[in-house]
Amino acid sequence: MQVQTDNLSPEEEIKRICREVVARVRPDEAERREVKALTEFVIARLNEKAEEQGVEARAISVGSTARNTWVSGEADLDIFILFPPDLSEEDLKEQGLALAKSVVSGRYEERYASHPYIHAYLGAHEVDLVPCFAVKDAASLKSAVDRTPFHNEYVAERVRGLEEEVLLLKRFLKCRGIYGSEQRRKGFSGYLCELLILKYSSFVGLLKNASRWRFGERIEIEGRGKYKDRDRNKEKEKDALVVIDPVDPNRNVAAVVSLDSFCRLIDAARDFLACPDASFFSLPSEAPAEAKAKEEREMSRAEFLKCVEERGTEFVMVLFEAPAVVEDVLFPQLRKAEASVARLLQREEFEVFRSDISVAVSAAGEKAFLVFELLVWQLPRVKKHLGPPVTSKHHAEQFKKKYIKLRIENGRYVVEVPRKYTDAVELLKNELGTCGLGKDVKGAVERGYEVLRNEEIKFFPGVGSFFKKYFG
Amino acid sequence: MQVQTDNLSPEEEIKRICREVVARVRPDEAERREVKALTEFVIARLNEKAEEQGVEARAISVGSTARNTWVSGEADLDIFILFPPDLSEEDLKEQGLALAKSVVSGRYEERYASHPYIHAYLGAHEVDLVPCFAVKDAASLKSAVDRTPFHNEYVAERVRGLEEEVLLLKRFLKCRGIYGSEQRRKGFSGYLCELLILKYSSFVGLLKNASRWRFGERIEIEGRGKYKDRDRNKEKEKDALVVIDPVDPNRNVAAVVSLDSFCRLIDAARDFLACPDASFFSLPSEAPAEAKAKEEREMSRAEFLKCVEERGTEFVMVLFEAPAVVEDVLFPQLRKAEASVARLLQREEFEVFRSDISVAVSAAGEKAFLVFELLVWQLPRVKKHLGPPVTSKHHAEQFKKKYIKLRIENGRYVVEVPRKYTDAVELLKNELGTCGLGKDVKGAVERGYEVLRNEEIKFFPGVGSFFKKYFG
Repeated sequence: MQVQTDNLSPEEEIKRICREVVARVRPDEAERREVKALTEFVIARLNEKAEEQGVEARAISVGSTARNTWVSGEADLDIFILFPPDLSEEDLKEQGLALAKSVVSGRYEERYASHPYIHAYLGAHEVDLVPCFAVKDAASLKSAVDRTPFHNEYVAERVRGLEEEVLLLKRFLKCRGIYGSEQRRKGFSGYLCELLILKYSSFVGLLKNASRWRFGERIEIEGRGKYKDRDRNKEKEKDALVVIDPVDPNRNVAAVVSLDSFCRLIDAARDFLACPDASFFSLPSEAPAEAKAKEEREMSRAEFLKCVEERGTEFVMVLFEAPAVVEDVLFPQLRKAEASVARLLQREEFEVFRSDISVAVSAAGEKAFLVFELLVWQLPRVKKHLGPPVTSKHHAEQFKKKYIKLRIENGRYVVEVPRKYTDAVELLKNELGTCGLGKDVKGAVERGYEVLRNEEIKFFPGVGSFFKKYFG
Repeated sequence: MQVQTDNLSPEEEIKRICREVVARVRPDEAERREVKALTEFVIARLNEKAEEQGVEARAISVGSTARNTWVSGEADLDIFILFPPDLSEEDLKEQGLALAKSVVSGRYEERYASHPYIHAYLGAHEVDLVPCFAVKDAASLKSAVDRTPFHNEYVAERVRGLEEEVLLLKRFLKCRGIYGSEQRRKGFSGYLCELLILKYSSFVGLLKNASRWRFGERIEIEGRGKYKDRDRNKEKEKDALVVIDPVDPNRNVAAVVSLDSFCRLIDAARDFLACPDASFFSLPSEAPAEAKAKEEREMSRAEFLKCVEERGTEFVMVLFEAPAVVEDVLFPQLRKAEASVARLLQREEFEVFRSDISVAVSAAGEKAFLVFELLVWQLPRVKKHLGPPVTSKHHAEQFKKKYIKLRIENGRYVVEVPRKYTDAVELLKNELGTCGLGKDVKGAVERGYEVLRNEEIKFFPGVGSFFKKYFG
């Protein structure tokens, strides 16, 4: 934390910092003009081609570039191509992709959200060309992307004059690693940022509110939304934050925001308000060269082993080839695998201290790994097997048929059995397949995996920075 | 289990066994006459002496000898001396003890229940001479012992003709180690046995019912009792069995019956009904000489260490001089200490596999000990310290002032701190005094204690049989 300059009050200091940041991240006139020209060019070309091809379609600009809420240097265009809602899915896909491809000359990829779209590279910019149905209102969606034009319509006018506040929030979140709704990050999407600013009128207003948020905080901009958490009882499944979509009261815009991301915003909001500092808006990659080099240097195996020695814990890495799926598919599966393997370990009484997952590229291709830090990794041979309550006559009788030497403890039958796995690594080597891993991770694991402990852990590029972040 | 003889049906086999047992445990005519004569002699002497001393008091016989429900050879007399209820406690104590002492010639002790009484040895018999108030009904008790004459009055007539059933039940419970309401045992009192037989009319009738009992089973003989568990929410405090006292609807006669004793009756009831066998009614001490010798031989240190080696666990014994209090005071305190120390160990993440307590007499006097069998007895240096939920603004701010390097996990702040005790024995050596130990145990521990692990455990007489029972 730097010392505040010029004896400004915290409020004045915050204003000063925000002005500085806005000056840095706000696109200048030239950039805005360039983006506008490019957008208009692509839209015009699409509409022309549609007419040429006799296709009933109309292109519109949506997203941050349509609303002047993009961070300087990060202008990615979102162009939606609206087709009549009575078109078949098949025709939409065929006509939409053909039309999109007909306007891109350079490199492009076919990508897939709720249906396929084209991701093209136009000079310094990336453009998503997304076919969708021009449904008459958000309640009549034929697919999830059909909602986007309504989001655009809702935000575009209302956000006018508040663009700088949105930019501050996006930047603030990005520097916390919680901007973006990708599964790897589970942070705040651009649309969500805009809605939060609409709700609280300013970046600082949002921070002040966020610093008092409760779990399951519910934010409604347009009256009462109908959205309900699927299951209020399951703490794990509960949404940390609920922001009712103003164009669809049945939808939570913040559904993807993880409990962790939610908490990190609350925590950072309090920190910044208490000790405002420009460093809240700087990314490590933008640090001075020397600091940056230090920041980017990976942790070496020797440094890792020294940490392990100091902690006295056991690190176990489950390593396998990353399945060939996009991150948004891979990461939820890795998190699922992490939770499932942790449960297996705990169930077998190996106390998990902490765990994490990641992917990194080794000489042999992209690898995915789960890391478990264990408090206990070897256990006695004897194990307690809990039987039914003594009062459950039927189950008690079944249990007593199966075991001879049993005793009663706290109202239940208990029997001592030999522990199948006295070593956590042996357990994982033999029972990983019984865990819920997700389809693609399961496939990858079935093709082969390694279970490595402490000094056996492989330090290919990315692993060192994973552990560096882990040890914080 | 022996094979059933003569192809009897289970019902017939049960009848045959019960007949045999009754023949063995029922006092014969000579014993009954002797007990009757002795009772009448003591009562007559007390009444005479009272008259001589000008004391308004009247002796009555209560308990199993008054109701012909004592097990042969175990006739202990209970003689209550009833004083007018308007007498002061002080006078009752003084006059009562004086009167009781005036009739005993041989060895006697002054004992204490809700007030003092005399425990005398008369030939082969032991006699309790208990002064109490002759209150007009059980609702007007001046002290807990005043209830006993009402119990006697209630049971005496009703149990006539069912004495053999009571004897079977007492014997059955005694062979399971759950007969008697002492704190060490927390089993079924003689009065409770009689009530259960009154309720179910026969020993087998009781067993059939008990085999279907549920936790908190409520038994009422005289209409609806008013008794309520003090706190239905605290599972630990809940009575396993509720038997409303027919002379006092506010009292649970089975309050002392532990969950364990309750379950052991249910379990044994099912076993006996499924495979009736005479062995259910035999005590180890009555086994043939060879088997008895084997049964009674203590486990040696070498045998113990072999068991420990096989199990792979760590045994930790907390050993101290038994405080000079009666067992009914000592055992609840030892159980309290056991639970409290187990909580300390678990809180510090040393997983307790099993624990028990006992007392035994060493060369240096009576010792008490707590034994903990641990799954984990050494832990890494690093420890997780859980902070407040991120959403608790005030607590979060306090926590963040205290710790620097924290992270967020499942919505809470988490910080890693050095573990104070990485070894369970060190923990107990230093922190035993912080546990809730009960007054007398606390005093004893303050005078000094040892914490011994595996091969350090001392094998003075009693310790070997403790572990023999432990390993079952």
